[in-house]
Order: sequence, then structure tokens, then C-alpha cells
Amino acid sequence: MSLVIMKFGGSSLANADKIKHVAERIIVKKKDGNKVVAVVSAPGDTTDDLIKMVDKIACNPPVREVDMLLATGEMVSISLLAMAIDAMGEEVISMTGPQAGILANEDYTRARIKKINPQKINDQLAKDNIVIVAGFQALNPRGDVTTLGRGGSDLTAVALAVALKSDLCEIYSDVEGVYTADPRVVKDARKIDYISYDEMLEMAGSGSQVLQSRSVEVAKKFNVVIHSKSTFSESEGTIITSEEKIKEKKMESFLLSGISFDKSQVKFTISVFDASGIVTEIFSRCSEVGINIDMLDQSVLNKSNTISFIVNRSDMKKTQEELDKMTLDFKASVSCNEHIAKISIIGVGVKSHSVVAAKMFKILHKSGIDVNMVSISEIKISCIISESDVLKAVEELHKGFGLSKKRVDLD
Amino acid sequence: MSLVIMKFGGSSLANADKIKHVAERIIVKKKDGNKVVAVVSAPGDTTDDLIKMVDKIACNPPVREVDMLLATGEMVSISLLAMAIDAMGEEVISMTGPQAGILANEDYTRARIKKINPQKINDQLAKDNIVIVAGFQALNPRGDVTTLGRGGSDLTAVALAVALKSDLCEIYSDVEGVYTADPRVVKDARKIDYISYDEMLEMAGSGSQVLQSRSVEVAKKFNVVIHSKSTFSESEGTIITSEEKIKEKKMESFLLSGISFDKSQVKFTISVFDASGIVTEIFSRCSEVGINIDMLDQSVLNKSNTISFIVNRSDMKKTQEELDKMTLDFKASVSCNEHIAKISIIGVGVKSHSVVAAKMFKILHKSGIDVNMVSISEIKISCIISESDVLKAVEELHKGFGLSKKRVDLD
Repeated sequence: MSLVIMKFGGSSLANADKIKHVAERIIVKKKDGNKVVAVVSAPGDTTDDLIKMVDKIACNPPVREVDMLLATGEMVSISLLAMAIDAMGEEVISMTGPQAGILANEDYTRARIKKINPQKINDQLAKDNIVIVAGFQALNPRGDVTTLGRGGSDLTAVALAVALKSDLCEIYSDVEGVYTADPRVVKDARKIDYISYDEMLEMAGSGSQVLQSRSVEVAKKFNVVIHSKSTFSESEGTIITSEEKIKEKKMESFLLSGISFDKSQVKFTISVFDASGIVTEIFSRCSEVGINIDMLDQSVLNKSNTISFIVNRSDMKKTQEELDKMTLDFKASVSCNEHIAKISIIGVGVKSHSVVAAKMFKILHKSGIDVNMVSISEIKISCIISESDVLKAVEELHKGFGLSKKRVDLD
Repeated sequence: MSLVIMKFGGSSLANADKIKHVAERIIVKKKDGNKVVAVVSAPGDTTDDLIKMVDKIACNPPVREVDMLLATGEMVSISLLAMAIDAMGEEVISMTGPQAGILANEDYTRARIKKINPQKINDQLAKDNIVIVAGFQALNPRGDVTTLGRGGSDLTAVALAVALKSDLCEIYSDVEGVYTADPRVVKDARKIDYISYDEMLEMAGSGSQVLQSRSVEVAKKFNVVIHSKSTFSESEGTIITSEEKIKEKKMESFLLSGISFDKSQVKFTISVFDASGIVTEIFSRCSEVGINIDMLDQSVLNKSNTISFIVNRSDMKKTQEELDKMTLDFKASVSCNEHIAKISIIGVGVKSHSVVAAKMFKILHKSGIDVNMVSISEIKISCIISESDVLKAVEELHKGFGLSKKRVDLD
């Protein structure tokens, strides 16, 4: 008898009928001879509705109270889902994050899981009960409930798979799995059958919101196989596992996994006569106030230096303030472009085939799209382009690299 | 510096503006030089909405899960209220029932408070923080959250007053206090300034839903003065305290406190030839299955016995089933009248003035209202009348006894 962790997102629990449907899927898994722990998010738009309520009451609410409030959404899910399963005649018990023994640090609203005491869950599994656990929440050392940040229920699921020594973690959502590109943008985007942790991380980091990045990191670290599936269909979904396992099992692997894009960033450009020390200064100032710099580019033309870098849109104001202070010292001019997008090609093929980058630029050039900044990592090539070009770029790259076909030909 | 417990009902917290208003009232109390612990119910119709959701999912949901679900409503209230107070610049912390150290037994959905560990609250009060506590909920020995039954937040407030050694417990709602009759029914109903615990208990038991009965019982036991006030006005409200204190302070006491009515009951009538042992049988069978019998009346006419008694409407089906079994043995005929109401006159004057009952019947008779069953206790006289007569009866009795005036003349 094996143990399966099943995680269901909020859109899978948005109303009574959907909750009953999820209950049925859990019971089928149980009757197939598995022990089941289900992790759930808050139903539908509950979390967003609660945040709207907060906005009407306080501009800068205490984070402890925000977590107290947000944790209620998952408590609603676990109890209603447990009632639905009970009504279908199966033994079931719900647990909040704290009851399930999930312990985190004191960083309210973005706590990190420190430890899981699986005793209570194991006791219930030993009694052959289905266990429903509230995702996204944990207990901190002060005895308060804390939340794990956006997408935190994925992390709860993977962390429970580690703690309970389950090697399969199924993550159900309203999409069929991971695609070569966003299927809402690219009509013939193809669902990927297998993808490595690293590729998945690059996909997630580039804006494909199927799985929370930290959950993939933890899965990679502890070798938990993630199975991304749809709540509402029986299709096979996508398996996220190690590159080695994919090779071992002679699974058909693809040199390129997919195209992703991200419109949540902005580009700052600084022009300065003497650039000595300025990059160091930018990095140190930004890191001091918690701003992540994503790409950086420095060019010299006629002794005039131009430095460009990318930050998250949410950090735009803070970055501007830091640069304003700096430019007093450096006599530089600063501009910010909000209308950019990052487009990325991801795949294990990137690291060994330099031809991929050349082909990417050729396709974009042919489509009349200007490439602005480039960053190349082991398994990802990213370019900054104009925001207005992003949909065209995704489509042309998807077509140009033949991603809708099962085999990718790199030249 | 004295400690005040302030309890706010759900209708006082139904939206962001009301929550801010409650925050202001708490801060005013704090700035008046008091330490403040506020107990809150779930906002507006939250609890009813959650129960509707349950109805769509399960007919007979597990009580543990019902409590897990219902407890979320008060968690929403405490966190939003704490945010509102924080936004107004005061130090504040929210606590769930379990965090506040409120411990109960294992009776889910109607748990009884066993003990309160006030350490955490006292620590926060010592730091001069306002403490917001979720009403209606407690921690049981299994580590689960349980709820205290309808109106349970009143009980939380009174129990905290006892545990924290506060001798004043303010209960805020959307009414101005306790009235001589329901002001929606009797236009010139008068707000009562002082009422004894016993009278209040009789008022509550007879359908006046200003305060939960158990909370009044606990207040009586531990001599906690309850002050029932309106959240939305500055009027003085009603003070509920002991008869002795009312006399001691030479407060103007009234022989009659008020009129109340209750339409939540039904009347069973059994006709049987030989009644020997039947009343005992009814009482023992009903008590076995947890049915409370409220009034009982036995009359004999031409050797035919008629036995009538009153039970709660919610117990109607169960009572019918028990009687069906019995009548097989006793060869009796059973009927049930759902269209009845109980009307009661409450006041310390009842116990010493037998004239009250006579006057009551005279007023009802003059108004053409048939009296069906009568029960007389120390401070209450109740009659069963036809449901359709109830509003007229309340008005006529209120007028007849001169309850809108400050002094009641009994003859």
C-alpha cells in the first residue's frame, strides 16, 4: 500500500459541486489501494476577497493579523472537503497546518517550513483514515499561524511528501499539466509528458504559474516526483522528476521544453560618464533594501556608459528611490521602461547546443522583434523585448522551434 | 486602572465601516484609562452562510468538521478588528479561543468551558496592549477547536470576566438593552435600566434574545455585572446584576420587568381512558432521548384523561415517534398543535403578589384571548395561547400592566 499526496488548488474547490468532485477523486485513489493525504488551498477567490476586505480597513496591516485572516480560507476548504468525503461514506479527518505538525519560522506572510512532525498524520493513516491538510499555513515558534507565501500550498504538499516518505506528490489544478507555451497564447502548444526539476524551475521563474518555485526546489532536493494533473479530466498530466530518472527510464526527452514569458518586470537604464564602481554600488544598495536584480547589462559608447538592469515591477518605486540617492553622487541620468517583457526558451538542449541562441535571435529578427538584453544560463536563454511584441514572439518561437511536434530539431 | 471586557455581536461587525466603528469604541474605552479585552462574534451573516454551504455538501456532517468550519468566522473578525485598531495607532493583538487559553470539553458544537488559562492575555495586558479574543470557540482535550453553541460569544465574554477578575462585562449589540417587551411589537416598550439575573434568565428563556442564557447563569454564579448596550449609540443600556445589589444601591426596582413571548414551541395532547402511570412514562421516555418538557397539564373529564405538554419545535418529530410507540401500549389518541405561543410576564413582583396572575388572565379575557395552559414560577407567569393572538396579547398586557411607565401598579 503506497502513500499518495494529492494537492488541490482553489479553483478546484470553488463551489459545493467542485468540492464533491474532488472528494470523489480522493476516494477513487483511496479505493485503488492507496493511503491518501490531500492538501488543499482556500476555495475559489476566498483569499482575494479577504485581501480586498483588508484594503478597506488598513493600508499597512500587521503581518501577524494578515496571516491569522488568510489562514481561515484553507480551514474552510479542509472542513467542507472532509464533510463531503464523510457524506460519501469514507473515514476522514481534517487538520490545519499547525494540527498537522507543520512548523515554520517567524517570517509572517512568507514563512519557511522548518520541520514537520508527522506523528498525528501517521496516526490517522494507520487507522486507514483519509487525511485532509490545510495548505499554505504553519505554526510558528510563538504559537501563531503563519502563511508560506503565494502558491504555498504546493510547498505544503511537497514538504509532506518528504516528511511522510511518499515518493509521489500529485498537484491538481485547472490546467492539464505543463505546456511548451501558455496554451491561451499559443494554440498548438503541446503538453509536456516529462520535465526535469531544473527546467521546471526555469519555466516557473519565467512566469509559468503551474507550480510554485520553492516547491520544485524542495522536490528536487529530496527527489520527490511531482505529477501535475487536471482536477477535471483523466489526462496523464506532466511528471516533474530528475534529469537522471528521465534518462534512466528511457523516457522520451526533449532538447527544448518550452517557451515562457514574464510581464511583471521593468527595466532601469542609467547613463553615466564615469562608470567605475557604479555596478557594485547598484548591487549593494539594492541588496540592502531587498531588491532582486534579474539581468544586468553594461555598454560603453564614446566613453559614455549605459547600465541597464531588470527588477520586479513591485520593487519599481523602491529602486527608483535608491537610484535617486545614487545619482546625486554619480551625476547620472536614470530612466525606467515599464513596457518590457522577458521571453525565455527553456530546455536541457540549451546547455550543449549554442545553436539554440543563434536560432532564437534569427527567428525574432525575422519577425521584426528587437532584442534588448540577453541572459544565457545552463538551460535557459532569456531576452528582454518590447511588451507589445510578446505574444508574437511566443508564437513565432514556438513555431520556429517546432515545439508542437514531439521531437525538436535544433538546426 | 480597571479591566473591561467588551463583547461585540456579528451585526456590529458586518462590514469594514462597522468594524472601524467598533475599533473606535474600543480605543475610547482604552483612552479612558481602562485595560480592554474585546470578544467578537463572526461578522454579519458569515456563520449562516457557512451553514448554507454545509447544507449543499452533507446532510449529517461530522460535528468536529462543523466546528472547524464555524470557528473561521470569528478568526476573520479578530484579525480585521485588530488591523483596524492598529491602523488607528493603538497596540493590539488578536487571539483565537485556543490561543486565549479557553479550554472546553469534547462536546463538539455545544462544548462547555472547563477552564481558562489567562496567562497569555495577562501578558499582553501587562504590555498595555488591547486584546481581541474570538468568541464562541475553545480548545478541546484532543487539540481540536470546538464551538460553544448559539450565542456562545456572550459566554466567552462572561467567562473571561471571571477568569481575568474583571467585574464588568459590556455586551454590545444592535439593540439598546433589555426592554419591557420586544420594541418591534410594542411601540411604547420601555428600556429597563436594571434587571436581576433571575429575571433576565426568565426573559431569555422566554424568547428575548438579547443575551445567551448560559452566560447569564455564569454571570450570576460569579457575580459579574453585565452591561447590555448598543454598539451604535451612547445610551446607557441595561445593567444585569443581582437582586441584592439592585436593592443595596437603592436602584429603582420594578415589580414587573417585562413581557416576553416564544413561538418556537408546540403542544402535544394525549387522550387516554386510564391515565395511571402515563405521565411518568412520558417524562421518562422523553428524558431518555433528550427531549425537554416545558409545561405539563393533566385534566380528567368523565373518566377520560387529557394530558397536554409543551416541547421545542425542533423536538417535535422525535416526540411524535416516542408517543407513537407509547400509545400502542396505552390505547391513547395523540394530537399536536403547532400554532401556539407562550406568553410570559416576568418580574420579582410575581413571587409576592398573587394578584398578578389574576390581573393577567383578566386582561387576556377582556381582549378575547383564550388561555390554554398556565405555569407559575417564582418570578414568571406563562400562558399558552393561540399563535395568532400573540401580538395582541403582548400589547394588551404591556398596556394593562402600565409597563411603559416607570412605576408598575399591581392593582
